[in-house]
Amino acid sequence: MSITAPRGFRAAAVASGIKPEGLDLALVAADRGGPAAAVFTTNRAQAGPVLVSREHLASGRARAAVVNAGCANAATGEVGLADAREMATLVAQGLSCRSEEIVVASTGVIGVRLPMEKLRAGVPRAVRQLSVDGAGDAARAILTTDTRPKEVLVEVALSSGTVRIGGMAKGAGMIAPRMATMLAFFTTDAGLEAAALERALREAVGASLNRITVDGDTSTNDMALILSSGVAARVLPGSDETAFREGLVIAARRIAEMIVRDGEGATRVAEVRVEGAASDADADAIARTIAESPLVKTALHGGDPNWGRILAAAGRAGVAFDVKGMDIWIGDVWVAEGGAARAYNEAVAAAAMGEDPVRLRVRLRDGGATSWMWTTDLSHGYVDVNAHYRS
Amino acid sequence: MSITAPRGFRAAAVASGIKPEGLDLALVAADRGGPAAAVFTTNRAQAGPVLVSREHLASGRARAAVVNAGCANAATGEVGLADAREMATLVAQGLSCRSEEIVVASTGVIGVRLPMEKLRAGVPRAVRQLSVDGAGDAARAILTTDTRPKEVLVEVALSSGTVRIGGMAKGAGMIAPRMATMLAFFTTDAGLEAAALERALREAVGASLNRITVDGDTSTNDMALILSSGVAARVLPGSDETAFREGLVIAARRIAEMIVRDGEGATRVAEVRVEGAASDADADAIARTIAESPLVKTALHGGDPNWGRILAAAGRAGVAFDVKGMDIWIGDVWVAEGGAARAYNEAVAAAAMGEDPVRLRVRLRDGGATSWMWTTDLSHGYVDVNAHYRS
Repeated sequence: MSITAPRGFRAAAVASGIKPEGLDLALVAADRGGPAAAVFTTNRAQAGPVLVSREHLASGRARAAVVNAGCANAATGEVGLADAREMATLVAQGLSCRSEEIVVASTGVIGVRLPMEKLRAGVPRAVRQLSVDGAGDAARAILTTDTRPKEVLVEVALSSGTVRIGGMAKGAGMIAPRMATMLAFFTTDAGLEAAALERALREAVGASLNRITVDGDTSTNDMALILSSGVAARVLPGSDETAFREGLVIAARRIAEMIVRDGEGATRVAEVRVEGAASDADADAIARTIAESPLVKTALHGGDPNWGRILAAAGRAGVAFDVKGMDIWIGDVWVAEGGAARAYNEAVAAAAMGEDPVRLRVRLRDGGATSWMWTTDLSHGYVDVNAHYRS
Repeated sequence: MSITAPRGFRAAAVASGIKPEGLDLALVAADRGGPAAAVFTTNRAQAGPVLVSREHLASGRARAAVVNAGCANAATGEVGLADAREMATLVAQGLSCRSEEIVVASTGVIGVRLPMEKLRAGVPRAVRQLSVDGAGDAARAILTTDTRPKEVLVEVALSSGTVRIGGMAKGAGMIAPRMATMLAFFTTDAGLEAAALERALREAVGASLNRITVDGDTSTNDMALILSSGVAARVLPGSDETAFREGLVIAARRIAEMIVRDGEGATRVAEVRVEGAASDADADAIARTIAESPLVKTALHGGDPNWGRILAAAGRAGVAFDVKGMDIWIGDVWVAEGGAARAYNEAVAAAAMGEDPVRLRVRLRDGGATSWMWTTDLSHGYVDVNAHYRS
C-alpha cells in the first residue's frame, strides 16, 4: 500500500504485452474526480503523453492516471499525440468519466509508436482489476529497468484529522537505451484546492526530484503528478497547509532518494551543498555543475577526495563568484580555504569519501543563498547499461 | 621540428624533477621579442600562471614561453601567483630580457605548490640547451598522461614569401586526477601586429580548440598562445591575412583533432553538426549539449544509433527551437523527420556508428545558423583513468 493508502484511491496493473513480459500498464484511480496538479519535463521535445496530460490538467482536476512502460510515445509526432488521447479515452470509457479527467504517462523507447491494440485490450482489464490492494503491482508495472520499485507513504496530522500522502515512482535509470526517465505519482486524501495542491507539489519537487541527477540528461517524458481525493480531512489555511506541504516534501524527498540510489550503475551517492552564494540561481548553478561533472563523479567512484575538481567545476558554472572566498569541505574535512589548498589529513579526507552519502560542501562569501543536489558516481556500470543495447 | 620550424625560434626541455621521472620543463623562445597573443580558460578559478601570463601579454609582445608539467600551480593563492612570477623571472634572467616578456604555463595536480628549488635549477639548464632541434623534446615535456605528443606544422604562401606556423599541445586528458588540461602553443615566422595575431588566434581557436569536448570539464589552466618572430615574410592586409588566418585555422584544427583523438578512454570520435538554428548561440548550445550528453556518448561507445538521445539532448539545451522542424541524420541515414521517427534501415544506421568520425547531424528550420563540435565516446577507459588516483 502506497498510492492506495490515502482513502478514496484504487490501483491496478496488467501485463498488456507492450513489454515482452511482465506488468507494463498501471492505473491509479480516485473514486471520483478531485483536485490534481503536475509538473512536467522542461525538455523542448515533449512526448505526446506530456502534451495531452498538460492539456487535461489545465482544469486543475483529474480522476485517474494511466501509465505504460516499454514505449515512451516520444518523437512520434501527431500520431503519437492521437495515441495518447486514445489512451485517455480508453480509461475514461472504463471509468465512465470524461477523457479530460485522465492523465496519461508513458516511459520506454523513444521514437516508437504505442501498440494501441494492446492498450485497447489491456486498459479495460486494468479498470476491472482496480482495488486498494493494487498499489504494489502498479509500482512494479511502471518500472523499465529500475532494479526495484519505489513507494512511499507519509501521514500528516491536521487539525481535523490525519491525512495520508502516498507515492510511487520509476526511473533515474535511462538504463535500457532509448528509455525516458522519471515518473512520480502521488495521491492524498487531504482536501485542498488545485492551486494549493500545485503550489505544494512545485515546492516539494523543487526540494526533491529537481535536485537529483544521474547523468544530467533530462528526459522527454518526465512528470510528477498528485491526485487528491479530499475524503480524509480538509487542509485549512495556516498550520494545516504548512503541515501538508512539509509532508509532501518528505514524501517527495524519500522518492527522490530512492531514485538516485537506484541510479544507473550507482555505487555511491553524494550530497553537494553550496552556501554563501549571491543568489539562489548562482547557488543552484554551482551545485548542479559540481553534481554533474564527470570528473567529480569519477573521483566519487574512485573514493578520491579530489577537491581540485570541485573547485574547477564550480569555476565553470557560469557564475561570477569570488574564488578568493571559496572554502571546500569533504565530509568534515576542510580541504580548501580562500580558493587555495589547506593542510589536511589525506587519510581522513579519503575516509570521508566512504561515508553514505558522501558530503561535498562549498562555502562562498558572496551572499546568503544556498543550494544542494544529490548525485551518483560515474561507474563502469553506467557505461555498461548505456552502451549496450538491443532492448 | 614543429614549434621551431618557423624561423627565429628555439626550444628545449629538461627533467627538472617536478615529475618523478622524465622531461617536465619546456621552454620555447624567440631570438628576440615579437608580437604575441593568447586566449585563456574561462574558468573562474584561474591558476597563478594564467593570471601572470594574461598580465604579461597585455603589451601584445612576448619573447618566450616556459611550461612545466606535474603541478598545475592552481588553487595555490597568493603564494602560487608569486611562484608563477618567479618562474617568469628565472627565464628572463637566462634570456637577458624583462620578466614581462615571458609567458608561463603549468599543468598537473591542482592545489599543490610548485617546487621552486627545482625550477631554480631547471630553468637555467633549459635556457642553455635552447636549440632549433629542441621542438620534439618540448612537445614531450608538456604532456601529463597524454598517450602521445601533439605537434603540427603548416606552411602558408604569402605574397612576399612562405611563412610557417608550428604548434604543440598537451591534454584533453585530465587523465591522472587533479590534472589540468589543455595547453597549446603556436609559433610563426610571419610578420604581423599583435592585434591581428590575436584576431587570428581567437578565430582559429573558436573553430578548433573550443569545439572539442571530452568531458565538458573546463580546466583552471587552459591556454592557447602564439608567438611570432616575423622574420620570414610580412603578412600584408588582404589576401595575405586571409591566407595566414586560414593556415592558423588548419594548424589549430589538426591540434584539436589530435587532442580529441587522445581523449581519455576514447575509442570513437564523433562530429556533431547543427544546422538551421535561429542564431549562432542557439546552434552552439545545441551542438555542445549533444556532444556532452553522457547518454549520447555512451550510445556512441556502444555503436548504438540511438537518435532518441540526440533529440532528448537537443531538447534540454535551453534553446527555444521548433521540435516539429527537427531532422536528424546518423552518417547518411535520415533517422528522424519533423521531430518524429522516420522509417530507416537499422543495420545501415548501426554501420554509420562505425565510421571515423561518426557523423551526427541535426537540422532545424528556425534560421540559417550552424555549429559543430567534436566529441569522444564515454568508455570504461574514461572511468578507469579518472576514478583511480595516487599519481
